[in-house]
Order: sequence, then C-alpha cells, then structure tokens
Amino acid sequence: MRLSRFHLHTTKETPADAEIASHRLMLRAGMLRKHAAGLYTWSPLGLRVLRKVERVVREEMDRAGAIEVSMPTIQPRELWEETGRWEKFGGQLLKIKDRKDAEYCYAPTAEEVITDFARGELSSYKQLPVNFYQVQTKFRDEIRPRFGVMRAREFLMKDAYSFHLTDEDLAREYQNMHAAYSRIFARLGLKFRAVQADSGAIGGDASQEFHVLADSGEDSIAFSTGSDYAANIEAAQAAAPGARPAAGEAMRKVDTPTQKTCEDVAALLGIALARTVKSVAVMTDDGFVLALVRGDHAVNEIKLRKAPGLGDYRLATEAEILEYLGSEPGFLGPIGAKQAIRVIADREVAAMADFVVGANEAGYHLAGVNWGRDLPEPEIVADIRNVVEGDRAIDGGELRLARGIEVGHVFQLGRKYAEAMNATVLDENGKAATMSMGCYGIGVSRIVAAAIEQNHDEAGILWPEPMAPWRVAVCVINPKNDANVSAAAEALYDELNAAGIETALDDRGLRPGAMFADIELIGIPHRVVVSERGLAAGTFEYRARSAGESENLDRTALFAKLTR
Amino acid sequence: MRLSRFHLHTTKETPADAEIASHRLMLRAGMLRKHAAGLYTWSPLGLRVLRKVERVVREEMDRAGAIEVSMPTIQPRELWEETGRWEKFGGQLLKIKDRKDAEYCYAPTAEEVITDFARGELSSYKQLPVNFYQVQTKFRDEIRPRFGVMRAREFLMKDAYSFHLTDEDLAREYQNMHAAYSRIFARLGLKFRAVQADSGAIGGDASQEFHVLADSGEDSIAFSTGSDYAANIEAAQAAAPGARPAAGEAMRKVDTPTQKTCEDVAALLGIALARTVKSVAVMTDDGFVLALVRGDHAVNEIKLRKAPGLGDYRLATEAEILEYLGSEPGFLGPIGAKQAIRVIADREVAAMADFVVGANEAGYHLAGVNWGRDLPEPEIVADIRNVVEGDRAIDGGELRLARGIEVGHVFQLGRKYAEAMNATVLDENGKAATMSMGCYGIGVSRIVAAAIEQNHDEAGILWPEPMAPWRVAVCVINPKNDANVSAAAEALYDELNAAGIETALDDRGLRPGAMFADIELIGIPHRVVVSERGLAAGTFEYRARSAGESENLDRTALFAKLTR
Repeated sequence: MRLSRFHLHTTKETPADAEIASHRLMLRAGMLRKHAAGLYTWSPLGLRVLRKVERVVREEMDRAGAIEVSMPTIQPRELWEETGRWEKFGGQLLKIKDRKDAEYCYAPTAEEVITDFARGELSSYKQLPVNFYQVQTKFRDEIRPRFGVMRAREFLMKDAYSFHLTDEDLAREYQNMHAAYSRIFARLGLKFRAVQADSGAIGGDASQEFHVLADSGEDSIAFSTGSDYAANIEAAQAAAPGARPAAGEAMRKVDTPTQKTCEDVAALLGIALARTVKSVAVMTDDGFVLALVRGDHAVNEIKLRKAPGLGDYRLATEAEILEYLGSEPGFLGPIGAKQAIRVIADREVAAMADFVVGANEAGYHLAGVNWGRDLPEPEIVADIRNVVEGDRAIDGGELRLARGIEVGHVFQLGRKYAEAMNATVLDENGKAATMSMGCYGIGVSRIVAAAIEQNHDEAGILWPEPMAPWRVAVCVINPKNDANVSAAAEALYDELNAAGIETALDDRGLRPGAMFADIELIGIPHRVVVSERGLAAGTFEYRARSAGESENLDRTALFAKLTR
Repeated sequence: MRLSRFHLHTTKETPADAEIASHRLMLRAGMLRKHAAGLYTWSPLGLRVLRKVERVVREEMDRAGAIEVSMPTIQPRELWEETGRWEKFGGQLLKIKDRKDAEYCYAPTAEEVITDFARGELSSYKQLPVNFYQVQTKFRDEIRPRFGVMRAREFLMKDAYSFHLTDEDLAREYQNMHAAYSRIFARLGLKFRAVQADSGAIGGDASQEFHVLADSGEDSIAFSTGSDYAANIEAAQAAAPGARPAAGEAMRKVDTPTQKTCEDVAALLGIALARTVKSVAVMTDDGFVLALVRGDHAVNEIKLRKAPGLGDYRLATEAEILEYLGSEPGFLGPIGAKQAIRVIADREVAAMADFVVGANEAGYHLAGVNWGRDLPEPEIVADIRNVVEGDRAIDGGELRLARGIEVGHVFQLGRKYAEAMNATVLDENGKAATMSMGCYGIGVSRIVAAAIEQNHDEAGILWPEPMAPWRVAVCVINPKNDANVSAAAEALYDELNAAGIETALDDRGLRPGAMFADIELIGIPHRVVVSERGLAAGTFEYRARSAGESENLDRTALFAKLTR
C-alpha cells in the first residue's frame, strides 16, 4: 500500500475523555472516530488491524472443525422469552420496536437464535456433534461506555455454539475449542493466560476465560508457579491450610481506643497482620451472619455467595450490626453477640490459634482467642477469601497475581438453553434427547485494544507482527526532490511485497520527523529509510520499532533481517 | 470440504410463503432459516455463496482504489437530524431508544455517518479524492418483507461514499465506480445491464442502476439495439416523434355507448389503438390537469411529476372530474370541459392528427380531432409516457424491454449532504470548500437471490461458477461398502483441490438418487461420480449441471474438462 493513496490521519492531540493508553493511541493513530457514546467508525488503518485478528480467528475456528454461519443482529422477543432472558438479561439488552410494534432486541449474544436454528436443522444424533460460529456485530447497552473499543456498545465478536448428544462429547469439544483459542492468541503474538472463571449469569457447568496480560487490565488473575493452573481472582483457590496449632495464650481484652482496622490493631499490638481476624457482617435470607477472614485477606463475594448454607446476601446495616452484636463497626467479633448469630469462617481462620478479634465493644479487641475454648467451632468453614500473591497453590507451587483483559470465554452450557427451547434430536434408539451445548466467545474488536494495552510505549503502539497493519514501512526522504531515491524506494517496496513481506511505502512527502513519528505512533514493526546518502553508500537505514537504535544495512542484510 | 463434516440440510418441502423461485430454492437447499419476518440465519451453505460475492465485491473495490472502513450499524438521531432524514426517510427507518432514552436508528444507508467521519478526517483538498466503502449489515423496516433475502429487513450491503473538491472529479470517480461495478457483475458470471435511473428520494445529479436480468424481476428496463443505452422504465426515453401530419378528417361525434377504454373504442371504430388518445385527470397544486397519452401508451408517473409546470399531483376524484369536465370517467377528453383546464400532452400525442378522444359526455367520443383547429395547441408538451417494446431509441436503434432485479446503484450526490452537514476542506487558495460526494451501493445478499432467479431449473439452482459453493462435487457410491471406491474418491478429491479446483466430497453415504438430487438442488456446476464399475473401467462419470447427459471420462479427460 502506498500511503499517499491510503487514508492516514494521525493527530498529536490527546482527547480528554480517553482514560487508557489503548483508547488514547487508537484515537491519536486515527484508527477510530466516535459518533456517539460507545459507537465508532473504524478507519482504514483501524480496520486493517481488526481484519487481521478476524482472519486468524476464522482460520483457527475452521481448522478446529467449526462451521461458519451468519445470524441476524435483530432478534425477535419471542425467542428470548423462551429462555426467560428477555427480562433477565437486564439493561444491556437493547430492546427495539418495529413499525408494527413487534418487539426485538439487538443481539448481545446469540444462544436463543442458534438454538432456534439448531432445533430446525438438527433432528438426528447422526448430525452431531456440530459447532456453528459467526463473526458478527453485537450490541450491549453499557451504562457507561468507555475506554474506546474496550467497552464499546457496538462491537465485533466471534461467537460459537456447539451441539452434542452427550456431556462427554461436549467436554471433548470444549477442550478442542480451548486448544483453538490458545492457538489464536499465540498466533496473534499476545501474552495471555487461560484462567478458570466463575460462569456467572450465563450459567453452565464449566468455563474458562482467556486474558491478555496487561498492567491496566480490569481483571485480577492468579496463576501458579507449579503448573499451568490459572484462575480469575473470582474463582482462584489456594491450597488448604495446615492443621490448627494448639492454643498457646489465654484470651484477654485489649485496649484499642481508636484502632478500627486490623492493620491498626496489629501495629498497636506489635503482631503480624495475619494473626488478626476481620469480621464482615452480612444479612442473608436466614438472618444475620458474621463472615471471618484473616486480617490480611479480603472476602471474595462470589465464593461467599456460593458457600454452603449461605446463598444471596447483602452487607448488614449499622442498625442491624448494633442490634445483633451490640457494637459499632470497627470492633466486631464472633464473641459476646447480643443475639444468636451464625458464623462462617474462612478455611484459614478456622486453622488459626491465639488470634485477635473485635470485642463487640467500642475501643476493645480480644487477643489470644482460640476456637472451641473461647467460642464454639465455626458453624460453616469454607474458602471465602481472595487469594493473595505468595499463597501456596493447590499444585504445590506458589500463586502469583497479574492483571488481565478478558478477550475470550469458553463455556460448557449443558442443557440449559436446549431444554428451555426444546431442542432435541433422536438418539440411537429413536428417542428424543435434549442436546447438550457449549458456547465460545472472542471479543474480536476488544483484542485490538488489549494488544495495545500490552504493547505500547511513549511514542505509540508496538504491534505484535501478526496484528500490525503492515510489517514494514519503507520511508522515502524527499521523494519529490530526488527521482533516484523515489525509484529506489519503489523498487524496494515492490520487492518486499513480492517476497511476501507486507510493506507500506510512505510516499506522502512529509518531513522526516513527522513521517517517523507517524510510523512509530501507528506501530509498524520495521522501518526502512531510503535516502540519498544511504543510496550513495549502498545501504538502507533499518530500525525495529522495539529497538532504540537504527543500523545501516545493505540489501542482503536487510532482507535477511526481515525474512528471519 | 467433506460433506460428512459440513452441515447440509436440504428438504423436499416447499414452504407455503415462498412466492418466487430463489426464495423456494434457498429454503429447499437449506441456505437460509427464518426467525421472524425478514430476518434470517445464513446456513453454512448459504454463507459460502454470500462470502464469494462479498470477496469479489471487496477485491474490485480495492482494485478501484476505494478504501475499506467499518461504520456502526446503530447511528445517533442527531446526525440524521442534520440532513432532515430522521423524519423524511419514512417508515423503513428503524428507530431505537437506548436505556437513557437517547434516540438512534439502525442504518439503512450511511450518508450521514460517513459525512460525519469525513468532516472530522478531511481538512485539506490534498486528502481528496477519497472513496470510503464498507460491507455491512443494514436494516430497512419493510412494510411487507418477502421473497426471502430479495426483500429482507436485515441484509448485507456494500456501500461506498466518495469525496471530491470538484464536480468534474466526482464525475470521473462515478465512471470509475461504474467500471468497477461492471467488472464485479461480469466476474460473478451474471447477465446484467447498467441502466439510467431516476435518482428518486436519495436525490443527486446523476445515477445508474445495475440490474441482474431475470424474467421474475420487479423492474422493467429498456435497452437499445443501437448502442449500450439502457434505462429503467422509470427513466427510459424513446426518440422524439416526427412532425405532425396535416389534418385529413373533419371532427365528428361518434356513438360509443359502452366503450370506455381506448381498446374498445378502437375496436368499435376499426382503427389502430395508436390513433386514440387516453385522458388521465389529475389534481395539482395549481388545479385540474388533463394528461394525454396515446391509447397504446401508459403514463409514466415519475416523468409526469417532473414535467415542466406540474410538480406533485394525485389522481382526480370522480367528483372533481364531473365538476371540471362534466362527464363520468371513460369518456373524458380535452374538448368541451365545463371549466377552464390545463392540458399536458405527451410528445407523441402532440404530433398526432385525426385522433380520437372522449367527448366529455357519457356514450360519446370525438373522432378526426386535430390540434389548433378543434382545440388549442396543448399548453405543455413533454415526454410523460413509458416506452414500449419496438419504440425507436434516441440512438436510432430499437428499444427492447426486459425484466431486471436491481442489485447496484451509483449516484452523483453532489453537495446535498456535505452542505447540510457542513463538510468542507480548504482548497488550493486556503478557502473552505464544500465537498462534492458520490455514493455507490451493492446489495450483496440480494445478488445471491438474483443469481438464482436468473439461473435455475426444475431440479434446483444452476450457480454461475464464480458463485457456486464448490465448483465440483465428487460423489461416492456406497463409500462404506467398498474401501477402494472410497480411497479413489478421496484421492480424486485431494488432487482436484490441490489443482486449485474447489471440490466437495460427498461422503455422507446417501443413496445415489438422494445424493444426486442434493447436488443438483444446491447447484454444483460439475458432478463426478466414483463407483466400483467406473473404477473397473478406469473412468469417472462426469456431468455438467447445465447438461442433460453424463459421460464417462478417464482421469486425463476429466481434468482437461475441469481445468478448461
């Protein structure tokens, strides 16, 4: 591509509402233009990158045996009613009335429509397994669209849905998709991790998320040094604690006049934070519950909700805390409540001896507390905390934390949707069998932003080569002043493209400084400068985007560098 | 592709609501599945064809120098208000409110958004000309969606928009796009015509439509034997008539007691239909007008509306006709009106002598009527009729009529949108200049249906080779019974694909009859049968989809046939 015939529109201004690097750089590089909140046009430059991602996704889905279809973006309410999601999906579902007042939504995902398709198309187990996918525009009516295409309302998604006679076959395809996803992100040149996830509102039996690692990521993920175990912080587990030590101290009341946090109490007493216990008061359908985690830990809300005998809950109000514990927050504990309360202890807390809790009296804590002696053994013991850096992993390794951006998700849905929509096939015995389903999503447009979050510097984007708009930029110094330079650059440009090295020719005639700044900003991995001086010396000036220094190479050395 | 790993789902049933061949055959071949009125999923088979069309369109747009972008499907009301189309576009515009009650539409076309993009991106004449295109899902809320994807509500469209400093440059790009469109339809293997069109509601200075010729087409188009002149019947012109002959008869009142149509009057009087004149009464803003066309011609509403001094009109009511002419319909004419009326005569009528008109009296006509003698020369003379087969063309040839399906449209929009939205660039003198625009659309999904309308028979679809899901189907007889036959078929399948001949292997194990019926129905151009008997004889049974007979060919002859 000759850039003089392309449409490149970079800018030095940083839009005020761009909060993260990828949003800033996509706007500065002219990859996007905003028309309304969360609604963008992808410019020619942006689309080149998006299409590269799309192509890799499609190739690997095809290779994995999935078959492409194309579903409508506008979907009838009736289908969404069948699964109850017309109401349950919430405010992100953009609802629409047509001229006849019939109701539709703009698809945020397509389980209903693909199941409608499948129940029409599939009638025999002989047609299974099958995995249908599409690369399609989706819409989610985000309350607060932001971060550019990272959280746009209209976005490009690859969604796939597989249909199976048995759950075993679903599990096999789930692994197949897991492998395909790993190939996709590896081929795109991204640092990523597949992590265990909570399956959340979409439901289902098993799920994993794929995260692009980036310090700015919204998600916290944990991974082990001992194996490929990795999980979203929502779901990550540490190894169970060892046995509880014997009690060594007597329980005593200590003065903590202004010490309302575990940190302050530990500092005052001169003990490790891990010797203190934090009490979190919640109300459940069955009444007041005190959840205990170590002072250096945090309650994991998803785990707490899933703990045996708990269910849905909310934080207790100050009035409720006063009513049940007789104390103001900051001095709460499981001993000396005014009314009978239930106690749920994190596994780590259940394994502690000689610990510190609030005394349910303003200004006081209890130290040297021991289970069974000073208070009853906890009613419920469960893993209800977030893992922390350095935790022992279940595989014996150590847990590390990182930030990630979710770009893919694989689910074993099981029969949830097929049952609701009566999607059956005849099995080997001629009996109707509800199909088991998997679903597999990739945020195609989000990958572009995530790649930038992972790969950028002060000067701009550093594309992984497979995502770069072009691998090489040939820059011409003063193309109009010197026909020889122009001709040499054109020849090099043609030769590189003929050798299968995707190359752009910057023949726009900009000053070298402005031209180089553009090429750096838009993140072309390799830059080659053709100048009068270089031609005289028989060399080209080569610089990798990721390197600080340029070098002068002759034609042979240059091709060797670029075809490595 | 091995069909055993593909998803093929043909059916013998013809859905009751499928009125035209392409809709019936797309459903029977399993290319589409309907979810709601005008909303379809494209199955793997359907999508293969759609993608082939898409690829050719994209390649030719790229080759013509257009640059691909991707605009949002959901577009803010504010932009559509700037051009007034939020109200003017009418009921086809699907309007949407988001969770914050902000208003949007699902784009039926994208002049507003591309102009918003352009006014942000383009600031200097040096960036012009530029032509942005996209291949995108569009939505038009048709009152009566029907004919499958021929008139779906959600459909795939290629839309392009070019920006220019001068109208001359717009005209150049318009020709460039015209040539690109011609290449696209030629490459797809379709019989088509580019025809002059009325530019209609989108407005603008010049436009042409591209029609796929098919007897079932909704549009009537005229083309000349004398040149490549072709036009939609809405806009087609014949050569002007010769000079008016001298009057030869005296005017006389003739009894036509029950003869209310020109046909009946001509039969009664024993004269040619072309000697009679039809009077059409309309009401305009300026009052009652009688439009006259020859008895064998029909009024062209679009031409009439554009006739000098006329403007918008509606048909007159019977009461109005009685008030102005004093007669009931069937006997109307320009002579003897009760009140002063205006008369507009088609050019052909103005050139007639000794003609027959209604007498404005029930049961009577006037014959031997002549302009200037029996009534004043007509106030307005204009071309207000549809051309008919056999008309003399403006190039001296003869006009022929054909039916067509509109699949493309090129417009010179001029400055209409750029002016409304203040899209300017600085010209050579540093002055702000409103850009001139062209727009160029192709109905990508509609092409698939149009190709079937043009190419089908009793057994199914006959794809033009460039659109076929596969060029060749290798059919295996009893694959499970005979390992040799299977192996030979596999080998042939691999060899053909390796030779660049896109081939499907029908290894589904169907009975030959059912297998052949499927392959015919889905329209694969070339069928090769591998059987035990053939292998013994060293031959394959070859049949072209368009031929009645099959022939036995050895490997060399088969490859020669398929690589021709």
